[in-house]
Amino acid sequence: MNRQCLLVCRPEGIAQAKNFEIVEAPHQKLGEGEIRVRNHFLSVEPAMRGWIADKGNYAEPVAIGSVMRALTAGMVTETRHPGYAVGDAVTGWFGWQEEAVAPASAVVRKIAETDLPLSLSLGLLGINGVTAHLALTGIGNPQPDETLLVSTAAGAVGSAVGQIGKLLGCRTVGIAGGPDKVKLCLERFGYDAAIDYKAGDLRAALARTCPEDIDIYFDNTAGAISDAVLAHLALRARVVVCGTAAIDRWDPWPEGPRVERHLLVKRARMEGFVIFDHMDRYEASVAQLAEWVRTGQLAYEEDILSGIEACPDALAGLYRGENKGKRIIRL
Amino acid sequence: MNRQCLLVCRPEGIAQAKNFEIVEAPHQKLGEGEIRVRNHFLSVEPAMRGWIADKGNYAEPVAIGSVMRALTAGMVTETRHPGYAVGDAVTGWFGWQEEAVAPASAVVRKIAETDLPLSLSLGLLGINGVTAHLALTGIGNPQPDETLLVSTAAGAVGSAVGQIGKLLGCRTVGIAGGPDKVKLCLERFGYDAAIDYKAGDLRAALARTCPEDIDIYFDNTAGAISDAVLAHLALRARVVVCGTAAIDRWDPWPEGPRVERHLLVKRARMEGFVIFDHMDRYEASVAQLAEWVRTGQLAYEEDILSGIEACPDALAGLYRGENKGKRIIRL
Repeated sequence: MNRQCLLVCRPEGIAQAKNFEIVEAPHQKLGEGEIRVRNHFLSVEPAMRGWIADKGNYAEPVAIGSVMRALTAGMVTETRHPGYAVGDAVTGWFGWQEEAVAPASAVVRKIAETDLPLSLSLGLLGINGVTAHLALTGIGNPQPDETLLVSTAAGAVGSAVGQIGKLLGCRTVGIAGGPDKVKLCLERFGYDAAIDYKAGDLRAALARTCPEDIDIYFDNTAGAISDAVLAHLALRARVVVCGTAAIDRWDPWPEGPRVERHLLVKRARMEGFVIFDHMDRYEASVAQLAEWVRTGQLAYEEDILSGIEACPDALAGLYRGENKGKRIIRL
Repeated sequence: MNRQCLLVCRPEGIAQAKNFEIVEAPHQKLGEGEIRVRNHFLSVEPAMRGWIADKGNYAEPVAIGSVMRALTAGMVTETRHPGYAVGDAVTGWFGWQEEAVAPASAVVRKIAETDLPLSLSLGLLGINGVTAHLALTGIGNPQPDETLLVSTAAGAVGSAVGQIGKLLGCRTVGIAGGPDKVKLCLERFGYDAAIDYKAGDLRAALARTCPEDIDIYFDNTAGAISDAVLAHLALRARVVVCGTAAIDRWDPWPEGPRVERHLLVKRARMEGFVIFDHMDRYEASVAQLAEWVRTGQLAYEEDILSGIEACPDALAGLYRGENKGKRIIRL
């Protein structure tokens, strides 16, 4: 039997364990053009919140009663598609389940970096790393000696943003929650400075760590952190809007300090980024990231849970801030 | 004697007549390198609010007791600078006064378009028109058949934005206050549709007039108008943040619905624009605008007050929405 994690009811706010259920389903037969993938790693992403919401988003909502949508990494175990052979390592939209039968269109890519851990295809060499790379270079446009500030700085996207910014010559400052994550930022991800936003006066900490203000703010949180940061933008600053982890719910729509005057006075820019608009540059980005990993210039941290039973609470735990680095479920 | 309008105390919120005073000063003697300019037209701009605030802005605050900073248009009547001759028409930072003695650095430009009204150098062929042109083309990046929405659509900047957008192939929708301005938008400035924001449900009006949502929002107001517009952005929309006319004061800092989710879901961009960053493109822009005026492709409306006595209340009246088109004081 194939064990699966289904979405059984739509959450209000952040999804909790009760919104999911583990079931056993019979193995499916392969149709023409399909492949069978044995999932080795399942991804857990903050963006899943959006995929299961019933409000307008950039993705079709996951249907109630269906396998939770997720990127996974695994091996092809059976194939009726000429482009895939048994033993191919693939990453794609194979869902929170042990095994998937899927058309080739579900594949994001064949994994070429067989010298590197397979799980990296879900994090640093997957949408997190590619998002960090393309959003930072595309919208952030980092220049040497600029100050780059990153929220969720020790997370899967943030830790890559900080390191790539450093490689491109920026001074990097991370914001993270708690002393352990601050330590990770400084010791593992090479930030020049790191701020524990739970430790008190964030504005004072920003003034201290960013004395020449912030040229690039890579925003994974929105909320009170962003509100403080926007008061410290440098002239012609760029704000990459990549996530809103600090906002529990958008109904009722939350209010915050108006941004217009900051943007006008500083001639600054805020722009949203969603990786799925940039798939044409995915391969080139992964190749660059893999090269940096091989040469030891890009470190990563994985937070690995075990077994399909870990799925239901995995997303809620992410929003509780439990993880250090990329949260993955190993089957 | 030279009559001048001085800033005598800093306003809270919008400047009122009591913040200014008309005085008579003796004529100054010309120093080496200076010119004497007889002002024929004084400009009144929404941005003056920022110039006289004591809070951080993009310009040094006007000192209490000094002549109110303003762009003017006039004629050189005496010169000790080799680059200027008596009779030259100039526009520059000559202040709210009848006559200025100033260094050449106060000149924004010599007015080459002597076939067109001198007053245009303060509006359509001045910072308003150039702002409209460069901000719309630079940040807005209008493409044929896109929907361009403009707030303060009948104003000095807005009316130019709408018409230039139309010339560049956009479908244009204006937002203005009251039936007279809506009529101006439709009959004089060629908007495809216009909305009276005072007439009721703005969101419903936006849904009706912008059925395919808004590709470019040229924002001169912020506030409730912008909040409604941001809920109707199209994918990859651009929001030009050019002014915040609807915000009375920034202390305490006003709150509004958060923008991050709109920007993320729509991969949209908000960016501030201040003309003084773009002076290298000023001449080329004026030349283009003048050509459009000559060929009848760009209409304008002027709201002309008379005499230096009109200065003190002129800015407050602008924020009361009294003017139709560019507000100017004729001396």
